[in-house]
Amino acid sequence: MTTKRVRHEARRGAWQGVEILRYKAEGSAPFKDITRQILFQDPTLACELRYFEVGASGYSTLERHEHTHAVMILHGRGRCLVGDRVFEVGEHDLVHIPPLTWHQFRAESDAPLGFLCMVNAERDRPQLPTEEDLRALRRDPEVAAFIAT
Amino acid sequence: MTTKRVRHEARRGAWQGVEILRYKAEGSAPFKDITRQILFQDPTLACELRYFEVGASGYSTLERHEHTHAVMILHGRGRCLVGDRVFEVGEHDLVHIPPLTWHQFRAESDAPLGFLCMVNAERDRPQLPTEEDLRALRRDPEVAAFIAT
Repeated sequence: MTTKRVRHEARRGAWQGVEILRYKAEGSAPFKDITRQILFQDPTLACELRYFEVGASGYSTLERHEHTHAVMILHGRGRCLVGDRVFEVGEHDLVHIPPLTWHQFRAESDAPLGFLCMVNAERDRPQLPTEEDLRALRRDPEVAAFIAT
Repeated sequence: MTTKRVRHEARRGAWQGVEILRYKAEGSAPFKDITRQILFQDPTLACELRYFEVGASGYSTLERHEHTHAVMILHGRGRCLVGDRVFEVGEHDLVHIPPLTWHQFRAESDAPLGFLCMVNAERDRPQLPTEEDLRALRRDPEVAAFIAT
């Protein structure tokens, strides 16, 4: 990013010159109505800062990986699974997702959910749950009701 | 940070369990009315995410260093010097401060300025300007009017 100052536009989640990207390749994993923007990615920075926007009723992929996620909700409301617990989240809440911890974000049915996510620039690829992992997760009724696959 | 979800409180810039720290030791460098909070700092993360809040008319230290700053304004309004230019900044604007670039943030006189700053966990210490550096910076009238030392 060579720009020194990037103006945020009135429309939520849009920055001048920051491309709105696909979350992932269609069909590579389950997800619904979510976009990705790379806010900071620089050879002098050991992490990247990304922004994800989940439309109302949308969700991110249920996954885990070795790398840690450091998340701040930027706007909207939703819920997230971290490990075996479901949390309600709102503006400026922080969510720490430790290594190898199942996680998923969902927007409320009446509001989008936008969040920042800091990750190491060098990181492993996400793992999807096996049928056995899903059975284990679904032993908790709250988790079973939450996860979308 | 062992907490999985940290709730943001209604009062701006306060998170449950996140201590509000001194910006720097008093007298170590020029600054005015600014606090520091460490939102994410973790041995598995190669960067830290900090939050700085500058009170109305306050300012950060005019400094430079080898490490890069990746900044997002979280609330309020102000201006920042990056290199030899002064920018107005507002909510969700992004500011990229490259290595060895003089920079300073100032809040407006009628509003505080709160911003996120991502930095490498391993980084060098800031350098303060010499008299010669200040003379060079002050050759530009806009910069001369902006900087506080």
